[in-house]
Amino acid sequence: MKKVHNFSAGPCILAPTVFEKSAKAILNYNDTGLSLIEMSHRSPEFVAIMEEARSLVKEVLDVPAGYTVLFLQGGASLGFLMTAYNMMGDHKKAGYITTGAWAKKASKEANFVGEAVIVASSEDKNNSYIPKGYNIPSDIDYLHYTSNNTIFGTQFKSIPETSVPLVCDMSSDIFSKKIDISKFDLVYAGAQKNLGPAGATLYIIKDSILGKSSVAIPTMLDFKTHADKDSMFNTPPVFSIYASMLTLQWIKEIGGLEEIEKRNNAKAELLYNEIDRNPLFEGTAAKEDRSYMNVTFVLKDDSKKEKFDELWNKANISGIKGHRSVGGYRASIYNAMPIESVQVLVDVMKAI
Amino acid sequence: MKKVHNFSAGPCILAPTVFEKSAKAILNYNDTGLSLIEMSHRSPEFVAIMEEARSLVKEVLDVPAGYTVLFLQGGASLGFLMTAYNMMGDHKKAGYITTGAWAKKASKEANFVGEAVIVASSEDKNNSYIPKGYNIPSDIDYLHYTSNNTIFGTQFKSIPETSVPLVCDMSSDIFSKKIDISKFDLVYAGAQKNLGPAGATLYIIKDSILGKSSVAIPTMLDFKTHADKDSMFNTPPVFSIYASMLTLQWIKEIGGLEEIEKRNNAKAELLYNEIDRNPLFEGTAAKEDRSYMNVTFVLKDDSKKEKFDELWNKANISGIKGHRSVGGYRASIYNAMPIESVQVLVDVMKAI
Repeated sequence: MKKVHNFSAGPCILAPTVFEKSAKAILNYNDTGLSLIEMSHRSPEFVAIMEEARSLVKEVLDVPAGYTVLFLQGGASLGFLMTAYNMMGDHKKAGYITTGAWAKKASKEANFVGEAVIVASSEDKNNSYIPKGYNIPSDIDYLHYTSNNTIFGTQFKSIPETSVPLVCDMSSDIFSKKIDISKFDLVYAGAQKNLGPAGATLYIIKDSILGKSSVAIPTMLDFKTHADKDSMFNTPPVFSIYASMLTLQWIKEIGGLEEIEKRNNAKAELLYNEIDRNPLFEGTAAKEDRSYMNVTFVLKDDSKKEKFDELWNKANISGIKGHRSVGGYRASIYNAMPIESVQVLVDVMKAI
Repeated sequence: MKKVHNFSAGPCILAPTVFEKSAKAILNYNDTGLSLIEMSHRSPEFVAIMEEARSLVKEVLDVPAGYTVLFLQGGASLGFLMTAYNMMGDHKKAGYITTGAWAKKASKEANFVGEAVIVASSEDKNNSYIPKGYNIPSDIDYLHYTSNNTIFGTQFKSIPETSVPLVCDMSSDIFSKKIDISKFDLVYAGAQKNLGPAGATLYIIKDSILGKSSVAIPTMLDFKTHADKDSMFNTPPVFSIYASMLTLQWIKEIGGLEEIEKRNNAKAELLYNEIDRNPLFEGTAAKEDRSYMNVTFVLKDDSKKEKFDELWNKANISGIKGHRSVGGYRASIYNAMPIESVQVLVDVMKAI
């Protein structure tokens, strides 16, 4: 099997052990003689998988008491709507920091349930930075932000200070570093970056918000529905949850988020150092707001494009074409990406 | 690997080729050097999978022109709500035939968007039959029914005759026999019975209903959002869709729904004949409404229970415990169940 360096923005690289163990489980789960994907979700085997996945999230992220962990469906895109339904209080107003396409889409859904107030935005400079020094109104039911912007390659380096309930879409940087969950009323994340295959969405919910919304919520969009049934109100996305559990086991085994963060820092520094050193390249995000997950950059000399593209293709690098709204290149260096693969890219950048 | 006869009601048995090919794709998809689950959903490889899955649904089910096929998330449970949002017209009223737990839950969600009218129900006899001879009001926006009742083991043998738009939740019998899709404005089905692993939900939508709802619809719940983006508005449940595509290829290869229907009839007849012949057993559903997917029965002599349970356990039969709301036993004999496994169960029934 040829070695491909997968810099895809998501779905993306996962740890090799996740591929190996999940493939095996599809053929014969734990010597039961059954495939993982043909077992009832009510079987003791799958109930144990669900419980281990939920409890590993708490352990790995050091989630304090008083929070419920759920694995649901629909991606962060459905999370935008569920957030608004479940968090909307008496103000019927919610604050949004819009730092990219996803944050903006999140605010749009809040307007279906109440009113979205744009507290701060980086749209004036094509979302190339994280806003600072804004005022957060006190008459909002919650403040929502997106911790890492996959498309534009920016990332919040600290949690916004506020006394209103805080909600964060952490789809593209959850489990990439330590985070203080106690600051949040709600955290959610599509699985398909650092957690597992597309199809599951992780929710970490402060118990005190359950059942407290000021609006009526359809059954499937109400967190309480799912919390009351231990994340099994309806058939869960079995395979994605199992593979997520395997990823969490892997994170724990290699030393938890402390080790993960160290590795991610080393990878990001290696790549950003080359971008800053090499006169042929330029980063597209403000230096202090650069994402450690998605590294966006452009080639300054267009005449070198053909050569560069040829070289990285030859080196078996995959998935570094930039998003159409930024152009250039985007190297996503999620948890499972080894530093050796980043070095291959850096070597190619040096070679042209 | 021991041979287990998997009679689970869902998630359930799939064709062996689906397990083999999907396990292989997780290790190395089509010799790309990448796992299926780490590839971008925008890659040419996955776009081709999505398009083949959608087009095989049309081919296998003989879907006429003017329908759109989507693979979404959330299960039929979210489909209950999406149905109401997308199908509600000027009457703001919808008719429901409630023949079981799922049909009832579907009607509940319609009450969130408009008003659900119960057109007919079999609740008076613990949903052991399919209602007949009811009147369908003309001032409803659509009529909804559930074609097969997984829990109670009943199944509609014909499509209700009506001039109002018809919607059907076919989660547990789609692809089990030929069906005239042209009679429906909307068909939906959770994948996890005859299609694929849990996590994908199939929608077959008459194009003329898209964008025609009388109510405002949140982005993710609007079929038009997904139809406009070829079922890729947000990251789709990649693995479930791939495995569903493999199942559809298998159905086509063995002779399509004509062959599937023949096999399913033979299996159901074998099992029901034994239930009717053997004085120790009794079916729980009205004979003319018996499901060919989920065969529900009870043991008439309680003193034989221990012996029967011991025998089927010894024969490596799995998943035949009845649902708590019916009791007794339920043998689910979906498409991928070989008649040899049904024979093993029948032999055990004869042996006590």
